[in-house]
Amino acid sequence: MSHIELGCPRCGRSRAADMSDEGCLDCGSPLDVVYLAAGKTLPGTDVPTPIHEPRAMVTLGEGNTPCVLLKALGERLSLDGLHAKLEFMNPTGSFKDRGTATMLSVAREFGVDELVEDSSGNAGASVSAYAARAGIKSHIFVPAEAPEAKLRQIRAYGTEIHPIQGTREVVTEAAVAYHRERGLVYASHMLSPYFAEGTKAFAYEVVSQFDGIRPDHLVFPVGNGSLFIGAYNGLREMVASGRIDKMPELHAVQARNVMPLVAAFNDESWGPDDASKTVAGGISVAAPSRQWQIVDILGKVGGSAVAVDEPGILSMQRHLAEIEGIFAEPTSAAAFAGLEELKKAGVIRRDDTVVVPVTGFGLKDEAPT
Amino acid sequence: MSHIELGCPRCGRSRAADMSDEGCLDCGSPLDVVYLAAGKTLPGTDVPTPIHEPRAMVTLGEGNTPCVLLKALGERLSLDGLHAKLEFMNPTGSFKDRGTATMLSVAREFGVDELVEDSSGNAGASVSAYAARAGIKSHIFVPAEAPEAKLRQIRAYGTEIHPIQGTREVVTEAAVAYHRERGLVYASHMLSPYFAEGTKAFAYEVVSQFDGIRPDHLVFPVGNGSLFIGAYNGLREMVASGRIDKMPELHAVQARNVMPLVAAFNDESWGPDDASKTVAGGISVAAPSRQWQIVDILGKVGGSAVAVDEPGILSMQRHLAEIEGIFAEPTSAAAFAGLEELKKAGVIRRDDTVVVPVTGFGLKDEAPT
Repeated sequence: MSHIELGCPRCGRSRAADMSDEGCLDCGSPLDVVYLAAGKTLPGTDVPTPIHEPRAMVTLGEGNTPCVLLKALGERLSLDGLHAKLEFMNPTGSFKDRGTATMLSVAREFGVDELVEDSSGNAGASVSAYAARAGIKSHIFVPAEAPEAKLRQIRAYGTEIHPIQGTREVVTEAAVAYHRERGLVYASHMLSPYFAEGTKAFAYEVVSQFDGIRPDHLVFPVGNGSLFIGAYNGLREMVASGRIDKMPELHAVQARNVMPLVAAFNDESWGPDDASKTVAGGISVAAPSRQWQIVDILGKVGGSAVAVDEPGILSMQRHLAEIEGIFAEPTSAAAFAGLEELKKAGVIRRDDTVVVPVTGFGLKDEAPT
Repeated sequence: MSHIELGCPRCGRSRAADMSDEGCLDCGSPLDVVYLAAGKTLPGTDVPTPIHEPRAMVTLGEGNTPCVLLKALGERLSLDGLHAKLEFMNPTGSFKDRGTATMLSVAREFGVDELVEDSSGNAGASVSAYAARAGIKSHIFVPAEAPEAKLRQIRAYGTEIHPIQGTREVVTEAAVAYHRERGLVYASHMLSPYFAEGTKAFAYEVVSQFDGIRPDHLVFPVGNGSLFIGAYNGLREMVASGRIDKMPELHAVQARNVMPLVAAFNDESWGPDDASKTVAGGISVAAPSRQWQIVDILGKVGGSAVAVDEPGILSMQRHLAEIEGIFAEPTSAAAFAGLEELKKAGVIRRDDTVVVPVTGFGLKDEAPT
């Protein structure tokens, strides 16, 4: 018997674990992993995992990223305890590898030998790499006009790449149609319960890197929200087990050009038609499939959702590189721009401890303009 | 009093530690760090370091890279214990960060506030980043025709970049002239004793990742040889302290197009004029400043030096990505191509344990052709 099942975070209904892309049969929400028995943990850690045989997992050594104090940038933002967790130091250069390692491990356990994913960036590269490592054939659907630098990495790992003309939503529809026609598994980083669960170790590492003391705030760039949701689930487990005294405040940052979550959380009027191009490609998600869940978490943790403009993102990308030696994707820089707003608004105070993930490597993107 | 001095690996003469670029005053050889007293170690490790206050070191969380079993590639090469140590999972995407962190830490301790380096690739990006992090102004001299992808990363960290027309040697001459005219420190990854010393932790990590048992063979791509020399020094320390029973065999791989070490070690006729362009830019060093030292080490450890051709390098780069999910620079792929030769020649046997560092991220290079 499996030690997990899949549960709906919205209405609570559950079903046996599988690799289907079907959401909750009652309300349609994407599902989460629910543990029926304790004991399975990621190798070398005590982080619960949905993987049935963790020692045989598909891994490239993801995780265990450094968390460094940003003294110089902290001084500019009047923050004494600003830390960056360098998630770009993962095997394909982004935090996505945490989620992919878990998703592909479970996929291999379910006997999957061919799968479909759609992405224009980090998730595509990550799934392409881990599928190669797992010996699973992959099809990655990408926007035909995606940046060449991103496509090049996705292609390098030998996936079958399917360029699709049209919006990001059209690309997803093409991937879904293909997986249904061919009877292949849809291993979506947006929908998979295993993917979000795989990012949870991020939170465990943060707490261990602060010698068991939780930071006061975590500030995330949020698109589909898999790291945000995973971190919340990990922190919730640690509160439940008494490892930390209470939940830190979690904040979500989006680009003003694509701000569905900020609008939903702050009751502002915004629709996908209001979206325009942003340099922060990793959070350019006009209709996140887990929007309800993210907004719900923000409410529970007393968090904030802030939008930042393009010049602010690019200027923060330069600061990070030039005064801290950290070459971040614009997406990651957006979180620091949001942090600046939160500091100005008094949500975060000078002596608070803050952690911001640097989710992707600047090398992966086009040259900043 | 300092716990270190600088010693000549060739003639044994020593002098007080400094940041001069002057080699041995007797024989001109580049110098090594020599410990006068034990006790200073890299934070969280027992790896001896020349840094005087290790807890205040300039760091971005370099090192602690994963070491993963390559089952599929191992099967192709008929090797049961083939491992890759993923050195590209460092803050600027290459192993160079280990050396730079130590070199820049010592530089800051010596009060350096402006420095000069020359590089066309990974070392330039690394020094640019760590100088930014240390608050030290840097000048990186680069070949004017270096690949734009490499220059872009070097530039991102805000260094003052000096493009120079001419060969790689002309670029070095320009950097040396500039540091002499301006009275600036020449922080050369090729000459600095601190740089090579900083890479030593690589070897300590390998031994700890094999539960204290040394692997049988380590196979390195070698250009200037800083990782090769650092690893040897670390292993020698571990043999001396009894942590490992004996020295593993160390092997050096070069591109056939630029093979000074292979020629010198195997008594073949080769001169810098015989060099031609190679895709393995990181080991395209026609006249390594530590050539004598590298050849000497190869002799001491019973190692080999092999040259590999361009199609073999590119084909191995593809294999690594497509069957193991590892996107390596061509330079790193060259080491695996060399490993294949060593296996065929019977130097390495099927049941030997082998570690190959993947020194740099494929993202950093131009698209493979």
